Amino acid sequence: MQYPNNIKKNFTKLNISHSNRGMDLENALNISNDYYLKNDIALIYKKPTPIGVVDVSYKNNKKTIEKAYFKEQSTLDYNGLYRGKYIEFDAKETLNKTSFPLSNIHAHQTLQIRNVIKHGGIVFLIIRMNNITYLLTGEDYIKYIDTEKRKSISYNYIKEKAYVIKEAYRPQIDYLSIVDKIYFKGE
Amino acid sequence: MQYPNNIKKNFTKLNISHSNRGMDLENALNISNDYYLKNDIALIYKKPTPIGVVDVSYKNNKKTIEKAYFKEQSTLDYNGLYRGKYIEFDAKETLNKTSFPLSNIHAHQTLQIRNVIKHGGIVFLIIRMNNITYLLTGEDYIKYIDTEKRKSISYNYIKEKAYVIKEAYRPQIDYLSIVDKIYFKGE
Repeated sequence: MQYPNNIKKNFTKLNISHSNRGMDLENALNISNDYYLKNDIALIYKKPTPIGVVDVSYKNNKKTIEKAYFKEQSTLDYNGLYRGKYIEFDAKETLNKTSFPLSNIHAHQTLQIRNVIKHGGIVFLIIRMNNITYLLTGEDYIKYIDTEKRKSISYNYIKEKAYVIKEAYRPQIDYLSIVDKIYFKGE
Repeated sequence: MQYPNNIKKNFTKLNISHSNRGMDLENALNISNDYYLKNDIALIYKKPTPIGVVDVSYKNNKKTIEKAYFKEQSTLDYNGLYRGKYIEFDAKETLNKTSFPLSNIHAHQTLQIRNVIKHGGIVFLIIRMNNITYLLTGEDYIKYIDTEKRKSISYNYIKEKAYVIKEAYRPQIDYLSIVDKIYFKGE
């Protein structure tokens, strides 16, 4: 179908703004990581979800999974390389307005956060709540759970400690600009 | 079934030695990485194989994959963090005695090797051929494919450039001792 140029443009714009509004955090991060990759800024990938394969079949030399189940990741979901440094993070959304439930983060993920800090990597959480996207450093996350023995992180703590990642056009979630500020001060 | 204690022991020992002999490279590396993790030496994981899910079912709130297929990894299979540095590598075995066929390494993996070098990470291939396990640096791999326009790496090149990873008991494939020599000289 052909549209006159101006209509086509408006149509595209509408589409973009609509899809951005509804786009979930994971999707937006994948597109941002793709932007970083294509523009030679960083190599950061989401790890595939591990699965346990129960049954496979073979047909014309092609292996098909006939039954499988999802397993839990023992690390955080995203990792990679930026400015010579190891980076690992996870992304979490909550509809809760006053606190971030810690049931979102499994025990082995908390252990992985401690380990990445210990081994000299950069590690953080990207948390979206109240329509704002925050970056909470692994260090501030660990400090909270080690001092406050609670089942959630209060929104006040997030507002006080976490950095707001402003949504932009390209990349939509430019978390590396925040990483620059926190981990590469003055470089 | 119950065995008298001494028989059970011998049986277990036999099993272990047999399984080690037949143990494939991937399995041996996973066990070595597990050793590094448990002994707080490094955080290195094999990435799950990505899949394309075609069909799922739900039963008692449990999601089961009813049909899916394996996809190709766009990175190398293993990555992680060691002594503050980003590490990525892949492991390949060949029964070929005189050359390592480059069909084992996909174009996007070669691109990933170039990218990790460019962004300041440590990247290499672990190659098992002629019953010896070698570590070939990403730099030497790229040098070869950029100068020799061949479909395989000659075994002579591997013998000349790659480092032999001696098989040991714990960890079985102590590739990080080679990484120390190459990338952390004198540190």
